[in-house]
Amino acid sequence: MSNLRNFTYQEITLGQTASYSRVVDEAAVKLFAAASGDVNPVHLDAEFAAGTMFEQRIAHGMYTGGLISAAIAMELPGPGTIYLKQDLTFRAPVFLGDTITVNLEVVEKLDKKKFVILNTIASNQHGKVVVKGVAQVLAPTEKLDIPRPEIPKVTIE
Amino acid sequence: MSNLRNFTYQEITLGQTASYSRVVDEAAVKLFAAASGDVNPVHLDAEFAAGTMFEQRIAHGMYTGGLISAAIAMELPGPGTIYLKQDLTFRAPVFLGDTITVNLEVVEKLDKKKFVILNTIASNQHGKVVVKGVAQVLAPTEKLDIPRPEIPKVTIE
Repeated sequence: MSNLRNFTYQEITLGQTASYSRVVDEAAVKLFAAASGDVNPVHLDAEFAAGTMFEQRIAHGMYTGGLISAAIAMELPGPGTIYLKQDLTFRAPVFLGDTITVNLEVVEKLDKKKFVILNTIASNQHGKVVVKGVAQVLAPTEKLDIPRPEIPKVTIE
Repeated sequence: MSNLRNFTYQEITLGQTASYSRVVDEAAVKLFAAASGDVNPVHLDAEFAAGTMFEQRIAHGMYTGGLISAAIAMELPGPGTIYLKQDLTFRAPVFLGDTITVNLEVVEKLDKKKFVILNTIASNQHGKVVVKGVAQVLAPTEKLDIPRPEIPKVTIE
């Protein structure tokens, strides 16, 4: 695995982009339910979900918020970034098995405070936008290039 | 455990409130890291975190976003709610062991579309606001009173 690296405020350029993808599988939905305590049956119970407008299980909307946050923290600006603001518009449901790709683009730099504004767009494997928003972050000033920590190992019963 | 119930658009009143609390423990942070893929050492590595401005490990900011989302989905309006928009301002770090309470308050009802606007404020055990924002949801039209699904059982190695 490659190291975990960041972009400092100085290095970040207007128009710079990054992306981050995850498959939304059974484990992801259960982990998010366990972490947040949101055990709504539309996420966990296939039979219940079949009777909803979605006709099948969907992921928690804020799970995609978590992927946007991970994209910022892992890719651009990366480690050392301080998250200040995020707005999210939930545009379409995310189904189990979907591959969600977060695309980030730097749209503004505020030199005085070292704030960076990014467009944050999450789309599914069909290119459909599922969550859209804008993030404001305090970019790192110190360059980091560190071993990538392993993803915690969890087992779901 | 009590059943999982919702408030329909008709039942919801201006000024109505609800709250939702969770302890942010080791498991919560690891589950969120595993679900999102955000393995930044400021969340997972005590030694690394000691050298940051926070001087100790902090939870992922969007974990508190997940608690706000859970409060809406579980309490007010509850199951059957469609999440439309959420804005979040991250005001203060959340440390491991903190108890985060999300307070929701209905501030507007838009009869035509059955949209409900809620103030969403997450505070720690000292009453300090950690995340603040506003949510827009489509409230349920159908009353639900269903057995509360169990939180998925997960084991962390």
